[in-house]
Order: sequence, then structure tokens, then C-alpha cells
Amino acid sequence: MRTTGFLFAISFFVLIFLTACEQGENQMNSSQTETSQQEFAIALHGGAGAISRDTDPEIRDAYLASLSEALEIGTRILDEGGDALDAVEQVIRFLEDDPLFNAGRGAVMTNSETFELDASIMDGRDLNAGAVAGVRTVRNPISLARIVMEDSPHVMFAGPGAESFAEQVGVELVDQDWFFTERRFEQLQRALERDEVMLDNSQLEQKEDIDERKMGTVGVAALDRNGNLAAGTSTGGMTNKRYGRVGDAPIIGAGTYADNNTCAVSATGHGEKFIRNSVAYQICAIMEYAGTTLNEAANVVIHEKLEPGDGGIIAVSKTGEIAMVFNSPGMFRAAANSDGYREVAIWE
Amino acid sequence: MRTTGFLFAISFFVLIFLTACEQGENQMNSSQTETSQQEFAIALHGGAGAISRDTDPEIRDAYLASLSEALEIGTRILDEGGDALDAVEQVIRFLEDDPLFNAGRGAVMTNSETFELDASIMDGRDLNAGAVAGVRTVRNPISLARIVMEDSPHVMFAGPGAESFAEQVGVELVDQDWFFTERRFEQLQRALERDEVMLDNSQLEQKEDIDERKMGTVGVAALDRNGNLAAGTSTGGMTNKRYGRVGDAPIIGAGTYADNNTCAVSATGHGEKFIRNSVAYQICAIMEYAGTTLNEAANVVIHEKLEPGDGGIIAVSKTGEIAMVFNSPGMFRAAANSDGYREVAIWE
Repeated sequence: MRTTGFLFAISFFVLIFLTACEQGENQMNSSQTETSQQEFAIALHGGAGAISRDTDPEIRDAYLASLSEALEIGTRILDEGGDALDAVEQVIRFLEDDPLFNAGRGAVMTNSETFELDASIMDGRDLNAGAVAGVRTVRNPISLARIVMEDSPHVMFAGPGAESFAEQVGVELVDQDWFFTERRFEQLQRALERDEVMLDNSQLEQKEDIDERKMGTVGVAALDRNGNLAAGTSTGGMTNKRYGRVGDAPIIGAGTYADNNTCAVSATGHGEKFIRNSVAYQICAIMEYAGTTLNEAANVVIHEKLEPGDGGIIAVSKTGEIAMVFNSPGMFRAAANSDGYREVAIWE
Repeated sequence: MRTTGFLFAISFFVLIFLTACEQGENQMNSSQTETSQQEFAIALHGGAGAISRDTDPEIRDAYLASLSEALEIGTRILDEGGDALDAVEQVIRFLEDDPLFNAGRGAVMTNSETFELDASIMDGRDLNAGAVAGVRTVRNPISLARIVMEDSPHVMFAGPGAESFAEQVGVELVDQDWFFTERRFEQLQRALERDEVMLDNSQLEQKEDIDERKMGTVGVAALDRNGNLAAGTSTGGMTNKRYGRVGDAPIIGAGTYADNNTCAVSATGHGEKFIRNSVAYQICAIMEYAGTTLNEAANVVIHEKLEPGDGGIIAVSKTGEIAMVFNSPGMFRAAANSDGYREVAIWE
């Protein structure tokens, strides 16, 4: 044992020494290829799903224009030294007000022809978070989620209670007509015609139906010049939903997560799968506990833990690394950083 | 470089060889201390908090007797080859019906003198999960959560919608009197007298108040003879809650998580902190991505990520390792495994 112990110790120290030398060389070699620390970075999505490449060019261009404008709003806030939380909230407010997306105005309709909106936001500085589920009259659910986070000791309010909270804190309330779009009404009629039975085991629901019924959730992840991360997500949920169904968007850990030590994530897709896999937090956990990059972590979750067609995520790491990873045919998305990189895209 | 490379390789192989020898010895030495694979295992909790050691011995004994009976129910199911899910559901039904605990009968009261119950359950086989939040007339919310999991394609129903779902699937409904206990009514009166303001930043709420107001959530984690893990949690939430506040109990990833590849966890305590730290899933993630044991993972989360007084968890790993870790003065808990180990405890 003594001899083995001695040999062991010698080899160990030689190895440590040589490893140190090697690392010094590697660091010098790899500094050009690795993403350098960004002053700020932002990524956003407007939903993932089976977006056809044959989409009417006018509609396609409308989405691209809206995503570009959203990106511009967020980039300007961050470039001017604004807070990641403000960038997240302001960009999501813009997307909520845009009828193209399934959040706020333009949200999908429930089985009873109403709108039930969900949103959540998280501050990477202290893991503070706020979420609302099933609100019906709040113009910008993301702002209500932020008030839950900042002005209450709680994280989540749901249903009529969340509505009372909204009335009490004085956010802008609108009637249901504000959210109404002809397109979502027609989607609901088609869903009702198919007489979709909810008490099945999900096999009855075709993938394409789910895609059409759930696409358009919006979300943002941002890193600001102070090194703070934030993320937020907002959605109308799925067409024809019943029973106060809550998806992943308002669930901290599933649809939204932000931690200054790792990354900020917003997810979009088949919400139930994202809840069952704690998708947003799992990406942060892989970075923290397996020591991977953001893109490695996101790829594990989206391509190994989830199934093709489930959806995707956008995320920003503490170094400003951007990930926009999806396993569906497309994801409305955009990203920018302080190096001048800009991207607005729908398909791969 | 060539010489360094050669020395490096030699040292590396010598080290690998010696490490292998060492490990062989260690394994032989440690096989007696490490937990061996269990045929089945179960752990349960009835809430964590500032439980005084001066508690009236009669009350203390009542809790110990109830925890023992709950443990016996679960152990019998598992010993006879039953499903982990059945053990979780049946034990929680027993605890929900017992007025001692803050779940089902004996739940705490909301600000408007009603009861709003939350529960969730998860199947480690396929990560399927079900949750309900804010139900008012369901005698056993855990069974409704299981029906959401098994008979709907969704994970979570909240508020009046969850109530409609309950009526439709035909679970046992009761009126609010069923849940009423004098003790919880008095707790609410004290909370109302303190005129607790909710729109503060939680500093106004004293730790002791939170403990008294939130203690008693129940939860179970189990491993069955087929190697399947399951977990579930049920609660009345916190005394004097408003605005449809949702805590961690119905949030998959926060209060409940189960994955056959790692572990099954149920949490109890300061719900908002458990949501913000994705506590239940984080423990599984540490096992998966950092390769730790269940107890190592649970200790990281409860003692390093959370703060003293926040609460605790009970958990069972895929090998039947049991963890019951808390950072509050006490946690009502019990555990058993196929080796004949039995434990029922309140304090450390």
C-alpha cells in the first residue's frame, strides 16, 4: 500500500503540473473561438410549431417586421444601460399588444369563447419571480406578473383571485373585445367542429392541431450591462382550453427561469411536456451542475429530453451567449448582442 | 511539446491504473456502509416549521400516531407489491382526511373564510403529472390530481375550471363544512387581527407567523417493487391567503417531482422559496447531472440554496435511499424500507 500510495502521489502531482501547462496553451488557442463576454444580449420568441415554409409572404413579412421591432425595443433599452427586467417587460408588452401573437391581444379563445391569459417573469439577481394564470381583463399580463413579483411576497396568483389583485393594484383593464381577433375565433370554431374530447389520453389530439392551437406564446430573455439576467413569458394558452387549464408559461421552472449564476430562459411549445421536464430550470441546472455551455445544455433538453415537434426555447447566459433551440419545424425568434450581432428568423 | 505530451500520457495511464486499484479496495470496504438496493421504500411528511419541543405531549402523540398509521398504509401497499402511485395516493388521502394536517379536512382558511386546496402527483415512469389549484369542494384533491394526470392530456387545472372538471369526472364532493376545524378558524382570526398586509415585501411577515400559517402540508415519495418512483403533495396553502395565491404544492418541479432515473421528492415549507428554487426537481437534477447521492443532493438544496427556517423535503431514490432533510426546527415525518427500517419523528 505504501509504495502504491507513493507512486500515486508522484503521478498525481506530475499530472497536475502538466495539465496546468496544457490549459495555459489551450486558453491561448481557444480565446478566439469561444464567445467573448457580451456587454448585453437579448433573445425573444413568438412561438414555435409547424410553421409552413409556404406561408403567405405577406404574413411571413408581417411576423418578421414585428419581431424586428420587438428586438429593437429590447436592444435599445439594454444598449442605453437599462435593466434586463425592463427589457423583458417592455418587449413582451409590445408582443402582447400585437394581434399576430398568442398573448394579450390576439390570444387564442377558450372553450367558452373567453380569453384566459397566463404570464410569468423572473429576476436573475435574487430569483424573485411573479406569475399570473387565467386572467381575463388585464391588457398586459406580463406587467401584472411583475407587480406580483415586486409588490407582493408571493409568486403566483390564479383565476378570479388574480383578477381581484389586478383591480386592486390598478393595472390597465380592458374588456374581452380588446383581445378578440377573427382569426382566433375561426380557430376555435374549427376546434369545436372537430369536437375535440379533452378526456382522452392525448393520442386523440393530432400534433398539427396542437401546433395550430397553441402556437404564438411570446417570451424574452435578457442580460443587461450590470450583469443581470431576466426572463419572461406570456400566452393565451391553447385554443378551446377548458377547466382552467394552466400550461408552462406561468410556471416558474417550466416556461420561465432566470439565475444570474447561469442563464435566463423562456420556453414555448407543448406546455405539458415543458412542465413535466422542468425545461427552463433544467437548462440552468445542466449549466450549473454539469458545467456545460448554454447551447450544450439547451440541446440536451430540447433534443434529448423532449420529442420532435414539442417546441423550443430562447435563452441568454451570464456571458451573453445566446441559444435559440427548437425541435419543431419553426420558431418565430430574434436575438441581438453588444457585438452588433442581429438575427430575426422563423425556420432553421 | 512532444516530451511533455509523452510524460503527460505516461502519468495519465499510471494514475488511471492506480485509481482503479484504489477504487477496488474502497468498494470492498464501503459495501457495508452504503445503502443497498431496496425492494421498496417510502417517506412521508406532514409539514415542516417551528414546531416547539414543548408541544403538549397529547398533541405530539396524536401526530406521531397519525404519521405511524399513514406509514403503515403505504408500507403495506408496497410490501404487497402495489404501485408506488397507489401508495402515494392512499397515504395522502389518509392525511387529507385527518384534521391534524393542513390538507383536505383541517386545511387552513383563506382571507374570505373559505378553503382553497392544492395538490399534485407525479409518476416517475414517464414523467406524467397532474395538479389542481384552488379547489373548494373536493374531499381528496390528491385523487383529483391523479385523474388530471391519467384521464386528461393536461397537467394542471386551476380555480373554478378545476372545480368543473371535478364535477364532471365524479370525484367525491363535500361542502365547505367538511374541511372546517375550530383550530384553523382561530388561526385565521389571529391573522386577521394582526391585519396582515399582503402587498408588502414579505418583511412585514414574521417568520413565526409564516410557520404557523403554512405548516402542515402533506406529501409522500415512494419506490415500489417494480422499480417505479412516484411523489405527491397536498395542502390548504397558507392561512388568510388571498388573490388565488398558489404555493409550491401544485407546482411540478417545485413541490413535487418524480423520475425513475433519479428520485421522487415532496416538499413543504415557505412555498414561494421552493418555487423560486425549483426545489423538488433541483434535487433530481443534482443527482442526474452532478452524480451525487440523494442525501447529498437534498443537503445542497435545503442547506445551501434555501435559508434556515424555509422548510424541508422527503424523498426516495431509485435505489431506495431515503432523505428527510429540513432547515426548520422540526418536520413531521416518517419512513420505511424493505430492510425493515422504520422511523417516525418530529424533531432532529
